[in-house]
Amino acid sequence: MKLSNRIQSMQESPVRKLVPIATRVKKEGKKIYHLNIGQPDIETPKEFMNAINNYDSRVIKYSFSQGEPTLINAIREYFVRDDIHFNENEILITNGGSEALTFSTIAICDPGDEILVPEPFYTNYSGFTGGVNVSIKPITTKAEDGFHLPSKDDIVKLITPKTKAILFSNPGNPTGTIFRLDELKMIAEIAIEHDLYIISDEVYRGFAFDGLKGISMGSLKEVSDRVIIIESVSKRYSACGARIGAIASKNSELMKNILKLCQARLCVATLEQIGAAELYKLTDTYTESIKIEYQARRDIVYKTLVKIPGVVCEKPTGAFYVVAKLPVKNAEEFIIWMLEEFEEDGESIMMAPAEGFYSTKGLGIDEVRIAYVLNTKDMERAMYLLRKGLEKYNS
Amino acid sequence: MKLSNRIQSMQESPVRKLVPIATRVKKEGKKIYHLNIGQPDIETPKEFMNAINNYDSRVIKYSFSQGEPTLINAIREYFVRDDIHFNENEILITNGGSEALTFSTIAICDPGDEILVPEPFYTNYSGFTGGVNVSIKPITTKAEDGFHLPSKDDIVKLITPKTKAILFSNPGNPTGTIFRLDELKMIAEIAIEHDLYIISDEVYRGFAFDGLKGISMGSLKEVSDRVIIIESVSKRYSACGARIGAIASKNSELMKNILKLCQARLCVATLEQIGAAELYKLTDTYTESIKIEYQARRDIVYKTLVKIPGVVCEKPTGAFYVVAKLPVKNAEEFIIWMLEEFEEDGESIMMAPAEGFYSTKGLGIDEVRIAYVLNTKDMERAMYLLRKGLEKYNS
Repeated sequence: MKLSNRIQSMQESPVRKLVPIATRVKKEGKKIYHLNIGQPDIETPKEFMNAINNYDSRVIKYSFSQGEPTLINAIREYFVRDDIHFNENEILITNGGSEALTFSTIAICDPGDEILVPEPFYTNYSGFTGGVNVSIKPITTKAEDGFHLPSKDDIVKLITPKTKAILFSNPGNPTGTIFRLDELKMIAEIAIEHDLYIISDEVYRGFAFDGLKGISMGSLKEVSDRVIIIESVSKRYSACGARIGAIASKNSELMKNILKLCQARLCVATLEQIGAAELYKLTDTYTESIKIEYQARRDIVYKTLVKIPGVVCEKPTGAFYVVAKLPVKNAEEFIIWMLEEFEEDGESIMMAPAEGFYSTKGLGIDEVRIAYVLNTKDMERAMYLLRKGLEKYNS
Repeated sequence: MKLSNRIQSMQESPVRKLVPIATRVKKEGKKIYHLNIGQPDIETPKEFMNAINNYDSRVIKYSFSQGEPTLINAIREYFVRDDIHFNENEILITNGGSEALTFSTIAICDPGDEILVPEPFYTNYSGFTGGVNVSIKPITTKAEDGFHLPSKDDIVKLITPKTKAILFSNPGNPTGTIFRLDELKMIAEIAIEHDLYIISDEVYRGFAFDGLKGISMGSLKEVSDRVIIIESVSKRYSACGARIGAIASKNSELMKNILKLCQARLCVATLEQIGAAELYKLTDTYTESIKIEYQARRDIVYKTLVKIPGVVCEKPTGAFYVVAKLPVKNAEEFIIWMLEEFEEDGESIMMAPAEGFYSTKGLGIDEVRIAYVLNTKDMERAMYLLRKGLEKYNS
């Protein structure tokens, strides 16, 4: 009774594997500031629960396989704000961005196929692809370049007959990097010249600081038939536990086929869709206020990081993460040391080791990902503890 | 820009493909009794919405990847009623039984592997397996045998080196058949002798009529390390739209590996889990009352069917379906005729063609699946219309 090779070759989540240590020290009484996971402390807008509490139905019935019309329409309207127009068949509701990514992978890749992904990348991309026998080929990007893309030549030389798509998150998790228009146009060119799909994970769209405007891949008309946009309410509306995502694409043949996967799993939870529709209806005033809050948090993180001798990190311009090289040999060991050994007034912090975000062996060993998901007061304190911890660790 | 072979070879849902015709005739004013889909009209117990409405949290956070402890414990207690004991690591919460089946397939099968399934079977099994490159090998069962299993020899001769598991729903969708203890023991024997997993889809457990007691595969100790039980709140608690299911297994290596798939997709919707926990806490009084209701519906269906000349159908003893051979050449054509041509006082019925539940070509062409999901008054009327329709169709 063997297990499959594909399941055995999947890695355990590197973000979650240190959790037992944190759980233990917290039980022992230490307070830990969690900068290790993208779970914001921002209140979920009341509109979400209100809609659910007002949902009046004797029977909690199956929803439509493609999703509740009210939610599909709310997402369509959300895109219209950026002059991107989808019809109702061009949006499919999914169980979070996670299912959107899995379904997209199954639809365009057979076992043995490859997807190009700039690294460091969101580690669960490995799970969504590996579980269905697709490999990720990394496009390496560097902290000192602010994790922007390398040259077109450097990317093209990674393409093989097995390459089916380029996948990236923009704004970037874990990098916090927003790709410039010229980078997106380069991706579009490569996709056209090498007949690839573009999977644009835009779940952090709207988190764009310093006056930057994150550009949706949906606005590049020359590749509108190649682009698959991944959406989610988790981050933008602080509703991680709702598990509502979506696939948006103007490729009707693709969407017709992904609908078969949606039909097989019947539907996404009805109530959560009713609630999520209200989130997408929130005005820009809401998203602006959230952006301002996260920019303030980003400023606290960055201000501290640049003052620490030996830290390498460009100012992140989007999402709510930053990847920083620390003046340590092994970041994971340092993170564990911070949890187990360090404390000031009974408090310490937890970060994510960045090594797990790279697929190239040996990269990211001295890097961490910091999620600035806590309020400014807590972020000030957490970053103070990081500075103190590094001083002590290196003395 | 090709689509994958695996997605292109997936069939559209045969249950859902006639829906556009039904939608059209309903728009034209015809009333249709829906016997074509397993969406019960029974009220979802109020405990579900009450728990959600009382859920007090500013932030709708990620749940645990393995599921909410309160729900896991409620499911454990539910199994204890049948003297089946799972610890908290032996249950994983999933997005409905659908995700439970997909994850189980990925965990035990590599591309090209095979799973034995008695046919006719729940059509979405094809989707859960085909989407991840696993084939179903059918074990043919027959209406005239009440869809009970063939001999051990007949099953064993279907096993190849690629066979990794036997999958079945018990009580059966679409057959309504409950496997006897001797059948389950035969499956256990085969699994031991040929080193197979047993995926026991028990989402209709509790729907067992005529004093029968559906037996959970979890009670066969000799295969406790081989058994993967698929659970769901959809049918038993009439909460199809909640999308809460579970995997239960005492194989700890398997569960540790499936947890990796759970971690990759982060979690199942938090609120739905809170609600579902209350459903599993409902006493046997609730499940008994539901069973009595469905048995009354079953009696109406069966009583009518046996009176129609040319109908072949054994009395179903579980779930809420029956597959019947009708005195027609092509059941799908008859179903469409019932929708488009037949009416009495502006009313007609919709059934599911059974052909889609078979993977052996040519089987089930003259069969339909009837879901007795409507109240007794509506079921009486619907079955009257079926009898009238058949008379007219064959005259």
